[in-house]
Amino acid sequence: MNTIIKVGISGYGNLGKGVHQAIAQNPDMELVAIFTRRDPQQLETPPGIHFEHISAAGQYIGRIDVMILCGGSATDLPEQTPQLAEMFNTVDSFDTHAKIPEFFQSVHQAALAGGRLSVISTGWDPGLFSMNRLLMEAVLPEGQEYTFWGPGVSQGHSDAIRRVPGVKAGVQYTVPVQTVIDGIRAGDTPKLETRQKHRRECFVVAQEDADREQIREAIVNMPNYFADYDTTVTFITQEQLDAEHSGMPHGGFVIRSGASGNGNKQIAEFGLKLESNPEFTASVLVAYARAAFRLSQEGQQGAKTVFDIPLGYLSPKPAEELRRELL
Amino acid sequence: MNTIIKVGISGYGNLGKGVHQAIAQNPDMELVAIFTRRDPQQLETPPGIHFEHISAAGQYIGRIDVMILCGGSATDLPEQTPQLAEMFNTVDSFDTHAKIPEFFQSVHQAALAGGRLSVISTGWDPGLFSMNRLLMEAVLPEGQEYTFWGPGVSQGHSDAIRRVPGVKAGVQYTVPVQTVIDGIRAGDTPKLETRQKHRRECFVVAQEDADREQIREAIVNMPNYFADYDTTVTFITQEQLDAEHSGMPHGGFVIRSGASGNGNKQIAEFGLKLESNPEFTASVLVAYARAAFRLSQEGQQGAKTVFDIPLGYLSPKPAEELRRELL
Repeated sequence: MNTIIKVGISGYGNLGKGVHQAIAQNPDMELVAIFTRRDPQQLETPPGIHFEHISAAGQYIGRIDVMILCGGSATDLPEQTPQLAEMFNTVDSFDTHAKIPEFFQSVHQAALAGGRLSVISTGWDPGLFSMNRLLMEAVLPEGQEYTFWGPGVSQGHSDAIRRVPGVKAGVQYTVPVQTVIDGIRAGDTPKLETRQKHRRECFVVAQEDADREQIREAIVNMPNYFADYDTTVTFITQEQLDAEHSGMPHGGFVIRSGASGNGNKQIAEFGLKLESNPEFTASVLVAYARAAFRLSQEGQQGAKTVFDIPLGYLSPKPAEELRRELL
Repeated sequence: MNTIIKVGISGYGNLGKGVHQAIAQNPDMELVAIFTRRDPQQLETPPGIHFEHISAAGQYIGRIDVMILCGGSATDLPEQTPQLAEMFNTVDSFDTHAKIPEFFQSVHQAALAGGRLSVISTGWDPGLFSMNRLLMEAVLPEGQEYTFWGPGVSQGHSDAIRRVPGVKAGVQYTVPVQTVIDGIRAGDTPKLETRQKHRRECFVVAQEDADREQIREAIVNMPNYFADYDTTVTFITQEQLDAEHSGMPHGGFVIRSGASGNGNKQIAEFGLKLESNPEFTASVLVAYARAAFRLSQEGQQGAKTVFDIPLGYLSPKPAEELRRELL
């Protein structure tokens, strides 16, 4: 590859740091600047990286090929992606499944207005898992699909625990029910309630004077978050939490159990086992940044998803090499 | 979907029969005719299907949207695909990995000459496995990739057994070495010799007067096919062969064990467990027939592979529905 893709990062939390590290693994990419809403002067930043306040983004039009957006889906991306999509090709990991249709429309309009291309909602779910759901359903139209998440830390559920009165700190693991998965792998196609697919394991540091039984009750009965699941609450010390629960592992599987011909069972499965959820999501974003750049170079515009992009665009290798080596 | 895709099948072995059954699972597709090199009058054919001699294919130009080619890779497809690619959009499962580059070129020229589109080398390997190799390598550039096949019947190796003097019938199973797979799933990244990845299990019916030890020696030492593997030979009766070994199961996995950031392990795996290898390959061919038709409708021409085609083209659902339901 002769072309170096010039990349910007917007947002410098766990995901933005992961993107920075992932760019270093891809010799055809170069980090131009990291944009943040905080005052760059006040940040503890690694040497050799150029930081800018997000308000300066406009000055980089024409100097950045793709902006990778690393904000959160609740409030950051619905505002930031349309704004930046008018100035740059963008990639994001917007993951509020129910709001994807309206998000797509708003980004699509902005990208078209600026003559740019935006890849929305990539990462692993939405992202690689979605791709496998589509692929397996298209290949095995008669069948049943299952998506399991975990074992892994759920940020939203961990936040919910920490809002319970008397809780000092805590973390929540989503754990798929192994016996159910084993059955599906062996050919079962059960109809599953929420409770049968995943368990929720909470590790909680209580405040000194707190009533632990009251905390436990508040957690396991919390609507939307825990009430529909079998939930366990284990009380631990701050030291244990720091020592044993500071990682961000995650993963899961998409399984489709289908039938072909005269009822022959055909089972397809895609799975991930991740020691770092944000670093893996970041790695997917960077591969799609390459695709966004190349599609844009070809004159394509507007919002795209992982369903719209040929896999070959993700790789730095030319098509002939891919056919020879990987097909 | 309002448009019905009119499909032809060329070749009526196991794969062609599987395609016929797969078309019945896809309401947006209609089988127009099955083409064969045999005399259609002499075939035992199911009722309601129109059979034609392959020499009549030219009469169907304009009446078939996609021709699905179900011949073998050794001699059929290198000849048939370029011939038919000039007349029809085509899909095939050419799987001689080493010859894909030259096959691609010859089909590409033919398809361009006829203004058609041809998807070559789809199925599961090449095909879905190739897509996962590319995807995982692009997302995790620092890592090690492993492809395992089986447990499943290898047609080529079964044929090789049957050519050994004294052998009346036989079947060969390729079996991945489970302990190695377990290690990789747990994070190991070994360098593996051929022998360490797969075993070969042969079930052989000997002729009555044959020297079984001589047969065993001939099989396990056969260059290219068995000499580089740990091979077991079990002698069984014709009745056992018919009763226990008449299925065509197969499957396997693509696993990539990568690292991101400061060395966090990230493992991605795609696996298939198939009761019928030809029926699954057929199901993939049919999904790509839909894509071939739609790409051709958009004016695209020439040879394409699974690397060139957005996943959305495989599904009968419109893009908005895919984003809402599956992303």
